[in-house]
Amino acid sequence: MAFMMERGTETHKMSPEMQQCIDDCLECHSICLMTANHCLEMGGKHAEAGHVRLLLDCAEICQTSANFMLRDSQLHGLTCGTCAEVCLRCAADCERFPDDEQMMACAEVCRRCAASCREMAHMAA
Amino acid sequence: MAFMMERGTETHKMSPEMQQCIDDCLECHSICLMTANHCLEMGGKHAEAGHVRLLLDCAEICQTSANFMLRDSQLHGLTCGTCAEVCLRCAADCERFPDDEQMMACAEVCRRCAASCREMAHMAA
Amino acid sequence: MAFMMERGTETHKMSPEMQQCIDDCLECHSICLMTANHCLEMGGKHAEAGHVRLLLDCAEICQTSANFMLRDSQLHGLTCGTCAEVCLRCAADCERFPDDEQMMACAEVCRRCAASCREMAHMAA
Amino acid sequence: MAFMMERGTETHKMSPEMQQCIDDCLECHSICLMTANHCLEMGGKHAEAGHVRLLLDCAEICQTSANFMLRDSQLHGLTCGTCAEVCLRCAADCERFPDDEQMMACAEVCRRCAASCREMAHMAA
Repeated sequence: MAFMMERGTETHKMSPEMQQCIDDCLECHSICLMTANHCLEMGGKHAEAGHVRLLLDCAEICQTSANFMLRDSQLHGLTCGTCAEVCLRCAADCERFPDDEQMMACAEVCRRCAASCREMAHMAA
Repeated sequence: MAFMMERGTETHKMSPEMQQCIDDCLECHSICLMTANHCLEMGGKHAEAGHVRLLLDCAEICQTSANFMLRDSQLHGLTCGTCAEVCLRCAADCERFPDDEQMMACAEVCRRCAASCREMAHMAA
Repeated sequence: MAFMMERGTETHKMSPEMQQCIDDCLECHSICLMTANHCLEMGGKHAEAGHVRLLLDCAEICQTSANFMLRDSQLHGLTCGTCAEVCLRCAADCERFPDDEQMMACAEVCRRCAASCREMAHMAA
Repeated sequence: MAFMMERGTETHKMSPEMQQCIDDCLECHSICLMTANHCLEMGGKHAEAGHVRLLLDCAEICQTSANFMLRDSQLHGLTCGTCAEVCLRCAADCERFPDDEQMMACAEVCRRCAASCREMAHMAA
């Protein structure tokens, strides 16, 4: 992962595509948790149950998907495939708030993670 | 869930099938973590990387799948579908050790969870 | 755990106190996630950021604490100690809503989990 | 976090110290999971139950600790304090293998995360 490679602490071998996908999942997990918090603090339409739930769903499947890859699991294609689907739904839901900077940043990260996970799922299939 | 209903503390409405599936996922998560520990302590063939990894994969996706249902997520069909697949692989891998009581108990729980998750995935589709 | 012992699938040795504590943590994790959902659906004061956040905090540390015990970790006293603290805060926050059945049920489970975790932390020290 | 700030996608306000601590926890989580995998593949003394368990413990509490901070939880001092303890134990256990590059890299990351979490715990107290 980028943050490890910069510091030169990563020694385990892994394809650059998988390293990138782990990075994308961890970034998406982080921004979804922060965005859920932002929405709760904004209240109103931002905090409607379905939206916050989707952000929490996306955060969790991104974490799980990253962990399968970090374990070098042979089944990471399954979790990456599911993760890609959830990220797309989350991105679309965030894009309903074009005036909210945090939400738009979150949507962008979700779409990047979806593309990366879809690619990994195809490579694993 | 069974343990909540027994104590009368569960008040949130949820279908009996979903309650059962959450129970099955939590039980499978628990026994997979305990079995991973058992395998590490046995060493040798029990502790080969691929096997322990699969137990950890199964424990984690079961937890994620249970959490999606506990949040009443509209996307639980996706995680239940993936969970069913991982549980079947884990069961088959445990069944390579017919003389090991812990492994056989784990396989049984994995197969029950797989059936339950598959059913939930179909109902959601 | 209760649900395993009922079905006769648990074979790993563990003290009854630890089994009870795992059960309490898993139950608390589950009800906190369901209560967070309930609060988001209620909206208003139920869904204020600090309260939902505390329910999510409690759900997560309960899960982590259960997992340390399921792994038979020598460090479970540390996570149980932290879990007991978080559960007490969560219980007190839920008790601000005496007319809400779900919240009161959650508070009761949190207090039981706090007591159980405190006991485990003392036994481990 | 570094990886978000580089890409300019982070918009939520957070102290630089907390951002650094989240980064340190996520890095430690990742390297501990990869090191557990490495140990399982090496087998022998590398894969002894107590050592693999400690790596899994460390990975999990780092993730939980990061998530508390990402939610901007008022209780992050508690999880950071516990995380610092677990990281120190994990570092010491990895340092028993001075000839293993992955283990030494893991120990270094664990010590950095322990220092960062200890600092956060003090600031929160």
